[in-house]
Amino acid sequence: MTDRIAETLEKLSAFGRTADGGVTRLPFTAESEAAAQFLLQYFREAGFRAFRDATGAVHGISEDPAGAADLPRILIGSHYDSVVNGGRFDGVTGVVCAAEAVRAYREAGGRGLSPEVIATNDEEGVRFSRGFLTSTAMCDGFSDRDFAEIVDLETGETLGQVLAAHGCDPEAVKAMKDSISGYDAFLEVHIEQGPVLYKNGEQIGVVTGINGIRRFLVTFRGEANHAGSTPMNLRKDAFYMAAQVVQYVYDEALRTEGVVATVGHAEIFPNAQNVIPCEVTFTIDMRSADDGRMETLAEKIRRRALDAAEQAGGSVIFRQTMQVPPVAMSGHFLQLLADACAARQLSFCRMESGAGHDAEIFGRRIPAGMLFVPSIRGISHNPAEESRIPDIAAAAEVLRTALVMYGDESAEKELQTQ
Amino acid sequence: MTDRIAETLEKLSAFGRTADGGVTRLPFTAESEAAAQFLLQYFREAGFRAFRDATGAVHGISEDPAGAADLPRILIGSHYDSVVNGGRFDGVTGVVCAAEAVRAYREAGGRGLSPEVIATNDEEGVRFSRGFLTSTAMCDGFSDRDFAEIVDLETGETLGQVLAAHGCDPEAVKAMKDSISGYDAFLEVHIEQGPVLYKNGEQIGVVTGINGIRRFLVTFRGEANHAGSTPMNLRKDAFYMAAQVVQYVYDEALRTEGVVATVGHAEIFPNAQNVIPCEVTFTIDMRSADDGRMETLAEKIRRRALDAAEQAGGSVIFRQTMQVPPVAMSGHFLQLLADACAARQLSFCRMESGAGHDAEIFGRRIPAGMLFVPSIRGISHNPAEESRIPDIAAAAEVLRTALVMYGDESAEKELQTQ
Repeated sequence: MTDRIAETLEKLSAFGRTADGGVTRLPFTAESEAAAQFLLQYFREAGFRAFRDATGAVHGISEDPAGAADLPRILIGSHYDSVVNGGRFDGVTGVVCAAEAVRAYREAGGRGLSPEVIATNDEEGVRFSRGFLTSTAMCDGFSDRDFAEIVDLETGETLGQVLAAHGCDPEAVKAMKDSISGYDAFLEVHIEQGPVLYKNGEQIGVVTGINGIRRFLVTFRGEANHAGSTPMNLRKDAFYMAAQVVQYVYDEALRTEGVVATVGHAEIFPNAQNVIPCEVTFTIDMRSADDGRMETLAEKIRRRALDAAEQAGGSVIFRQTMQVPPVAMSGHFLQLLADACAARQLSFCRMESGAGHDAEIFGRRIPAGMLFVPSIRGISHNPAEESRIPDIAAAAEVLRTALVMYGDESAEKELQTQ
Repeated sequence: MTDRIAETLEKLSAFGRTADGGVTRLPFTAESEAAAQFLLQYFREAGFRAFRDATGAVHGISEDPAGAADLPRILIGSHYDSVVNGGRFDGVTGVVCAAEAVRAYREAGGRGLSPEVIATNDEEGVRFSRGFLTSTAMCDGFSDRDFAEIVDLETGETLGQVLAAHGCDPEAVKAMKDSISGYDAFLEVHIEQGPVLYKNGEQIGVVTGINGIRRFLVTFRGEANHAGSTPMNLRKDAFYMAAQVVQYVYDEALRTEGVVATVGHAEIFPNAQNVIPCEVTFTIDMRSADDGRMETLAEKIRRRALDAAEQAGGSVIFRQTMQVPPVAMSGHFLQLLADACAARQLSFCRMESGAGHDAEIFGRRIPAGMLFVPSIRGISHNPAEESRIPDIAAAAEVLRTALVMYGDESAEKELQTQ
């Protein structure tokens, strides 16, 4: 199993590899499509019935060899898209762990469950203004309005246009709504993307819940003018206004316990060295397990932005673009995964997830559980992102053990009800 | 003359017109080439011998009708490129004023001079890291190293590659070096691009000198990491470092008399909303008539940048990319242009130029003079840039008058030496 995990992750890292050894595999691109084709083949070789859904996700169902029906359906996996110049482990680690765990479960004669491996699409939300494409489609679903309003941040193409251009029927995406209710549970393995496990020397993390996210789009407007002939006191410099708030976001988040906030994306217009910027737009990404703290911090930032605009003679639009409340993992799976870690004699800890994951979307609808693999030095969304193969194999082994335990549990329940 | 000025400026504004009525006419683009073809035709219709040089500039020589040789050669004009989403008056106003003044001078029987109208290329320095392409080629010249080192800021193509792709032989550009010494004087009309004339209600400005420019490229490096799972105190956020300096540049320039400074261009990497920025590069454009003040301010900013990088655990590279010392206009032409304004009974004032112009490059080598046309509300490098047609026609009339006076002067000198 360990060798196949290493080999498969190596092969996957070629789809969208960047010059410095990172990965850029945005959804609905040539790199992403090539990765999906590879996964289809990989799932088939593992003995799964593999297919793609209308969001571009790749599924692999491991059917009961004896053809037993009505078995508990458990969905297991993670995403196969990446951020811009991200690492080789983010997302696909969970896909490979799921596939190898299910394969091993079956090869060891595992019965009583109908596991389905999934590689979801556009979880990251880098190309479009939202992420969680596949998981949202399977839960709350998409409307025609969503297809028109969610746009490619670079080109302005709508999600509907991009889906159609890649042979994904928006109607079929709509029809996926609530399909999650056909499953009994969701499990996900993911790299931690933070320094906690690495710093504490733990082999695995059992996730208790996932932080909420709020995202904001802030647009300052000033006045474009000549950089040489406009006196300083007659300027309305949008970048000057924005810079004050970029700084404030960091300083305030640093002062506020239990919240992180990031200005990761900015556009300056017209972005010419001899023109005073007339417009600067930037994003704020805020995470916390405490929704109220995010609310308070957002309001402080909004007021600071209004002040900056007023003092510099400009204007500002402060708009919330995303609000995902914190979500708890299933207590039952939390215990099951902890028991599986203990059975494998691994050192583990319970922890919150700072990052958003598909498990958060699925976890609002069905019982969900999640495992973290240590990230070396906590680095992620970076070509230097790394996790140790033995740690990844250990997580796959815990997943496999959890499947056996869950299968036994289900069989016992079945006996009791008979 | 007034009607033809209005009509010609209107026609020129179509080359690169943007959705909001501005102009984007970067050098060596389809828009720029179309404008050059139009100017060739316009110069020919005015009776000039028109041609393009190896930098893509358009020249129009008004030859003496009687074939007199050895007449004083006077070069008159401005540039035909624009910034990104700039106005309709920047640059071309001076080209049209020059052409109409020379045409009127000849039509009124003007003799004793050999005037040459010029529409220079890539004065703005928006597409490449430097501007003043034509004027530099005619003065200090370009080397093979320049052609390799000056690059398109978006695509990274070298100036040499772009020249060759547009049929401009880099060898011919090199051969233009020192060709300015074949001329006796340079005159330029330009819109003020600042609020001084407009606020004081003057009809025309006689430029005494041009502010020096220094440009800097600042690159902060931090560490890319996940926006959700990296605690605030473990971040190395390059945008946080940069924002402090963007703010400082503005605040310090505001406190320093006689200096302006602008951060107009910035690139954030990887520029994704859920990734902590690992690299931010921005430009600083600084102008002053006092080189020492720029030196002092630059050093302060450099120290502030080092502090910001150190405190945030990152690094910074602070590099000067351009240094043009202030230059004075010719005292002789200053007087001649003032006399011409007085002769036309126009209200005028003497003033420094905050912006850089070709007159600054030429003015280091041969006597140069410059006139400013009022900019309404001082707005420039903006689609809302505007100057009144009667003010532009008045400047052309002053130019024509100055040509007559200069011709008379030269004839007198000729008589005295005979």
